[in-house]
Amino acid sequence: MAAPEIVVRLDEKFAAFDDLWTPKIVGQINDMHLKAVKAQGEFVWHVHDNTDEFFLVRSGSLTIQMKGRPDAVLGPNEFFVVPKGVEHRPVAENECEILLLEPAGLVNTGDATRGDMTASNDDWI
Amino acid sequence: MAAPEIVVRLDEKFAAFDDLWTPKIVGQINDMHLKAVKAQGEFVWHVHDNTDEFFLVRSGSLTIQMKGRPDAVLGPNEFFVVPKGVEHRPVAENECEILLLEPAGLVNTGDATRGDMTASNDDWI
Repeated sequence: MAAPEIVVRLDEKFAAFDDLWTPKIVGQINDMHLKAVKAQGEFVWHVHDNTDEFFLVRSGSLTIQMKGRPDAVLGPNEFFVVPKGVEHRPVAENECEILLLEPAGLVNTGDATRGDMTASNDDWI
Repeated sequence: MAAPEIVVRLDEKFAAFDDLWTPKIVGQINDMHLKAVKAQGEFVWHVHDNTDEFFLVRSGSLTIQMKGRPDAVLGPNEFFVVPKGVEHRPVAENECEILLLEPAGLVNTGDATRGDMTASNDDWI
C-alpha cells in the first residue's frame, strides 16, 4: 500500500485499535515506516542487526532493557533510539502508547522471528 | 556529532530555544535526523527533489501550502508527509512547535538555498 497523502490524526489512529504489540503503519517517509503501537507486559529479547529503532512514548511509560547497558525509561514525549545491533526488550508495566520509526518491512521481533510475538509488518491503519 | 544514546525529553528540547524556522537536531535514526522547530509566519517556497519530508505538529497549527494540491492543515498530534518533488511552503499564523524528520544534511530551504531563511543543517540541541 502506498503512503496516503493526507493529514494523519494520531489521536484517531490510536483510538482505532486495542491489540497489544502489533505495530500499525500510520505513515511512510522515504523507506521508513512510522508505526503506532500499544504495549503492556514484556516483549521478547531481540536485535535488529541493520537498523536503529526509534521509540517515542505518547502516553504511559515504557522501559527498554538492553544487554550490557542501563535501561532507557521513557515517559510521555520522550524518545530513545536503540542503536542497530543492540539486543533489547521493551517492557511496560501498564499500557502505553508508542510511536515507532523503522525501515519498511522490518519484522518487529528482529532475529527472534516466528514466535508468538511476531506481527505483520505491513498492517496499515 | 554522533547521535547521543540517551533518553530525549522533547519538552526540555523545545523549552531550550526560541528562534523561529531554525531546525534543531534532537535525534538520529540511521541516516535520518529528527528536528525540533518553532515556526511563525511564512516560510519560503521550496522543493526537496530527492526526499519526502515529515511534519508533526506538537502545539499550535501549521498549514503546508503545496503547488497544485490542497493545503494540509495540521493541529497538535497531526502529521503530514510532503512527497519528494512537491513544491511547498509552511505557514503558521501563530507560533507552533513542529517535529521534522528528514535525511541528515538536508538544507531546510531545499532548492531555494542561500536565502535569509536558510539555516544550519547540523545544529544539535
